[in-house]
Amino acid sequence: MVDARIRTGRRRGVARKNVQRRAPYILRQIGTLNALSEEGLCLIEENADRILNQTGMEFHDDPEILRIFHNAGCDVQDTRVRFEPGFCRQTIQATAPATFIQNARNPANAVQMGGDATVLCPSWGPPFVHDLDGGRRYATYTDFERLVKLHQTIPWLHHSGGVVCEPVDLPANKRHLDMLYAHIRWSDRPFMGAFIGAERAGHALDMARIVFGKDHVADNAVLYCVSNTNAPLVMDAHMSGALKTYARAGQPVACTPWVLTGAMSPCTVAGTLAQVLAEAMASLALVQLINPGAPCLMGSFASTMSMQTGAPTFGTPEAGQMVLAAGQLARRLGVPLHTVGTLSASKLPDAQSQQEGTWGLMMAMFAGANVINHATGWLEGGLVTSFEKTMIDADLCGKLGRFFEGIDLSENAQAMAAIAATGPGQHFLGSEHTQDNFMSALFRAETPDNNAYEHWEAAGRLDSGQRANALWKSHLSAYEDPGLDPAIDEELRGYIARRKAEKPDMDYF
Amino acid sequence: MVDARIRTGRRRGVARKNVQRRAPYILRQIGTLNALSEEGLCLIEENADRILNQTGMEFHDDPEILRIFHNAGCDVQDTRVRFEPGFCRQTIQATAPATFIQNARNPANAVQMGGDATVLCPSWGPPFVHDLDGGRRYATYTDFERLVKLHQTIPWLHHSGGVVCEPVDLPANKRHLDMLYAHIRWSDRPFMGAFIGAERAGHALDMARIVFGKDHVADNAVLYCVSNTNAPLVMDAHMSGALKTYARAGQPVACTPWVLTGAMSPCTVAGTLAQVLAEAMASLALVQLINPGAPCLMGSFASTMSMQTGAPTFGTPEAGQMVLAAGQLARRLGVPLHTVGTLSASKLPDAQSQQEGTWGLMMAMFAGANVINHATGWLEGGLVTSFEKTMIDADLCGKLGRFFEGIDLSENAQAMAAIAATGPGQHFLGSEHTQDNFMSALFRAETPDNNAYEHWEAAGRLDSGQRANALWKSHLSAYEDPGLDPAIDEELRGYIARRKAEKPDMDYF
Repeated sequence: MVDARIRTGRRRGVARKNVQRRAPYILRQIGTLNALSEEGLCLIEENADRILNQTGMEFHDDPEILRIFHNAGCDVQDTRVRFEPGFCRQTIQATAPATFIQNARNPANAVQMGGDATVLCPSWGPPFVHDLDGGRRYATYTDFERLVKLHQTIPWLHHSGGVVCEPVDLPANKRHLDMLYAHIRWSDRPFMGAFIGAERAGHALDMARIVFGKDHVADNAVLYCVSNTNAPLVMDAHMSGALKTYARAGQPVACTPWVLTGAMSPCTVAGTLAQVLAEAMASLALVQLINPGAPCLMGSFASTMSMQTGAPTFGTPEAGQMVLAAGQLARRLGVPLHTVGTLSASKLPDAQSQQEGTWGLMMAMFAGANVINHATGWLEGGLVTSFEKTMIDADLCGKLGRFFEGIDLSENAQAMAAIAATGPGQHFLGSEHTQDNFMSALFRAETPDNNAYEHWEAAGRLDSGQRANALWKSHLSAYEDPGLDPAIDEELRGYIARRKAEKPDMDYF
Repeated sequence: MVDARIRTGRRRGVARKNVQRRAPYILRQIGTLNALSEEGLCLIEENADRILNQTGMEFHDDPEILRIFHNAGCDVQDTRVRFEPGFCRQTIQATAPATFIQNARNPANAVQMGGDATVLCPSWGPPFVHDLDGGRRYATYTDFERLVKLHQTIPWLHHSGGVVCEPVDLPANKRHLDMLYAHIRWSDRPFMGAFIGAERAGHALDMARIVFGKDHVADNAVLYCVSNTNAPLVMDAHMSGALKTYARAGQPVACTPWVLTGAMSPCTVAGTLAQVLAEAMASLALVQLINPGAPCLMGSFASTMSMQTGAPTFGTPEAGQMVLAAGQLARRLGVPLHTVGTLSASKLPDAQSQQEGTWGLMMAMFAGANVINHATGWLEGGLVTSFEKTMIDADLCGKLGRFFEGIDLSENAQAMAAIAATGPGQHFLGSEHTQDNFMSALFRAETPDNNAYEHWEAAGRLDSGQRANALWKSHLSAYEDPGLDPAIDEELRGYIARRKAEKPDMDYF
């Protein structure tokens, strides 16, 4: 594991090397922060059980799922399923793995999901993109490809993601094929499967089998699926269809209630947490009933809204409390936590975007989250992927990765000889210890300007958004094609062409 | 205590009230984050003892201090003092209080320092101010007064601070009198004493006696002093003079090594931590030797620098690791921790300023810091106090205050009846629970724009810096003079006039 090798290398006092190299994922050496006591955790868990027992959850337009729950002994009336207290937890804990690996076509980029590992994924879902040259506009497939390539150049992202933006110039019912192709072709990191409906999930599996081989896909996780509930307490067939398909194929499903407190859940943290846990447990239990042992993650995307205007709000105290508590609840359940990162309601890569985004990603990391979606680029409440914010957020990802390596306590890092040799009132700039360590001792971010005012003025008085504008272009220029076996490429293209020919283009899913 | 009353009120389910009211300080209900193991802490402590024993610390131009250490049995040679292993720790632990109160002239604004309390102070030290109208310029006494008033309007700041900017239009050798007057006259919160030299510290004590009464000052902490070392391992007479004066008067001293790793300490975290602890312990032991039982804080202002350019850098992984470790070391020493907040090298209230500042203040809070200087406004590595950043940072202060109240687990907050009544697929916007709680359930920040893109566009497409520009002006317009007893005011003015008449104006300290 690269991370371990870096640490060992530093412990040995290897100097004059640049350790700005990437690890395939973060292995946290600094612990988690807890927002709830044992008593509080039990209360939320009891409340979740009461919700599942008394109110239950509805599964729309998917009779098969109702049969699965009925056969498992649950109380099914119409589309409503009610659960005995403890049933979901026991079902999950009996078979769900605590940790697993998602492979990538470059084996060095395989990621661990669970334990002390954290995997950072880029922005997901926005129909618009924004950059300082072109402003805000509907995203195209060209934008999609540029984002996949840009993410591939960012060492601190671990995953190529899924819908890095919604390419609205392509037919809604076929664009998932093009999106999957872009991830496979232009990135060699792990990626997400199509997440809406069983048919598209099947296409993603077919394409994964072309890339990885059928046997490999049968035995390994190679696609990642986010399955949202329709809070409160509903799952529709779009989501259950994909969930079933991936669960049967042994591919990981992040069972992720998405709520805005006050609209889709109560406006209080404790109420929202119980509902989120209830929805997540019902979904996770479904995965385990379909395929015992299939990898799955408890998801939590619990955000807030302005109670004055109804607008979604991000980087809030309540969102921070909820993600820390979700981390505790997931660890008690014994499954990895999936959550969200640098969310912001801002329209620009400005101060608001970073106060909210930094808050969100730091809280998710301190929650011990194992997979963090939207770790970069998300603006305007998820309507926009910003090229500039992607670069600014990437620095935060890198800083968090370095931070969580923990404090190096090697003899070299203790620097006792350097302190003795330098002595009171002298400086360390020219000391041998500084000369030996200056390349590796401190993390280097790309977007900040740390220079004196006069230098900054002479360089054009740019704010960090403007500097990031130049930076994403230079990253794209330096993008290196990871290459793809021409035979696989041809097979993929043929597969996509056949699927597209099967039905007319449509503007809806 | 206001904080406790708010929590009790919420527990009772009191609704339809605005709980955006302020507490005099944060009482953290969420724990601290640790960066070092027991083994790591012992290693740093042993190294600090080795530094104090083998290299020692120098105290320049202050023979009295050398006598104090000599009389305590330390090894004094020329200006160098060496300490037996364990001497400083034992001296501190024998008499230093773990927690104490700093009073304010409004008793409701008294602050606890130590334990789970955190006190947020504004920007400190900048010779320049910045706002979007006037740009960057040398600070004046008018700016100083405006900042004191602005801070007084911010509910989430707990302390009026000290040198909120350096009023360079006033003579350097007398401006401390005007600064103290502004804090006393325009704010009713706790404030800092003059920190350079014994004479000015004496002036601050004289003025405090006029405001609070001699007996009160003799028995209570009413001034706060930050005493920096000149890292590495030196204390000069400016600092030791103020330290002695405040320690003798029983006024709190934050013994704060200020280092940039690689320049004033080794470029590694472990080396810097040992040096910081050594310098802090020598200073804290000095306070306790001068006046056993005098309140004091371990300070840590350990930042980083670019190893490429030598420029100071902020919001870095290493700074985060160092403040978490400093919190652990201070708790083991048994004294409160003083540290720093929203630091940034940015020249503008832009994305950089918030990524760095948010990182810094969150890390300080998670470190369990008890007093946080520069919680608002600091830009350009401490050369600038920004009016706009002050407002943006104030939101972060408020969010952290709310976050650290912890999760409300009252029956009202659990919202079980609301979840049962709403049911699957419905929304909570109109529910009785939402109607009862919408005023108080979620924290409201002032600077974000959460509205839809079209509304934001119609409102002029402002970034958060531009919105903060209007906001600080509206805050200043709404400033309410807390008033001051005219007799006290007259006595203060008379005192200041006499001190100023004693010597000519000078442009240096």
